[in-house]
Amino acid sequence: VKVLTGNRKKGLVLIAHGSRRASSNNEIRLLAERLREEAGDRFQHVGCAFLELAQPSIPNGIQACIDAGVEEVVVLPYFLSAGRHVAEDIPNEVDVKRREHPGITIRIAPYLGAAEDIVGVLLKQAS
Amino acid sequence: VKVLTGNRKKGLVLIAHGSRRASSNNEIRLLAERLREEAGDRFQHVGCAFLELAQPSIPNGIQACIDAGVEEVVVLPYFLSAGRHVAEDIPNEVDVKRREHPGITIRIAPYLGAAEDIVGVLLKQAS
Repeated sequence: VKVLTGNRKKGLVLIAHGSRRASSNNEIRLLAERLREEAGDRFQHVGCAFLELAQPSIPNGIQACIDAGVEEVVVLPYFLSAGRHVAEDIPNEVDVKRREHPGITIRIAPYLGAAEDIVGVLLKQAS
Repeated sequence: VKVLTGNRKKGLVLIAHGSRRASSNNEIRLLAERLREEAGDRFQHVGCAFLELAQPSIPNGIQACIDAGVEEVVVLPYFLSAGRHVAEDIPNEVDVKRREHPGITIRIAPYLGAAEDIVGVLLKQAS
């Protein structure tokens, strides 16, 4: 008998605000690539999505994970503060996908600005 | 003979965009407090400042460091991408203070989004 735990296929979608500047959106796409490289076997699919002004949209970014066959999607808001986008807009878009795909677990991770480690990162940047 | 190196008094100013939401601005002030606690003896003065919509302004935030007697000020942009604010607005405000205080070293650290460690922080948030 082989007991496997924690081996559900998981996807990660980095959610950024989106910008009129193509270079800013490309920074996000590059960051998603770095996340993909670093994720190892923790995530079988890593992508990014934008709340506005750039593509893919949040629903399309989540859908790309689902199309890749994941059973669990982690949505990670690349935001610095818990404003309306983090508190309302992203959860609303996620809820639509949850209703569309009741068999898929879609979880919203804490936004970047809430990370404990941010203080250490900032002090390292400053020194 | 006592040779002391690297013992100049240093100040750190975390620069955020500023928001119409008081709670977002207070998140920044709390983060500056956490930086102050974690900085230990690396920075003798730690504060925050806002590009717009909140106080203190960037010039006033830098001035508070100088008034506290630091010889070197590190300005740290709490921004996710290298947009106009990071590339132009913050450097312009810093230049004004440099001209006002030629005896003080004012250095702009790389913005948060450029931190190598951000990938690790994000993966930790996601897991």
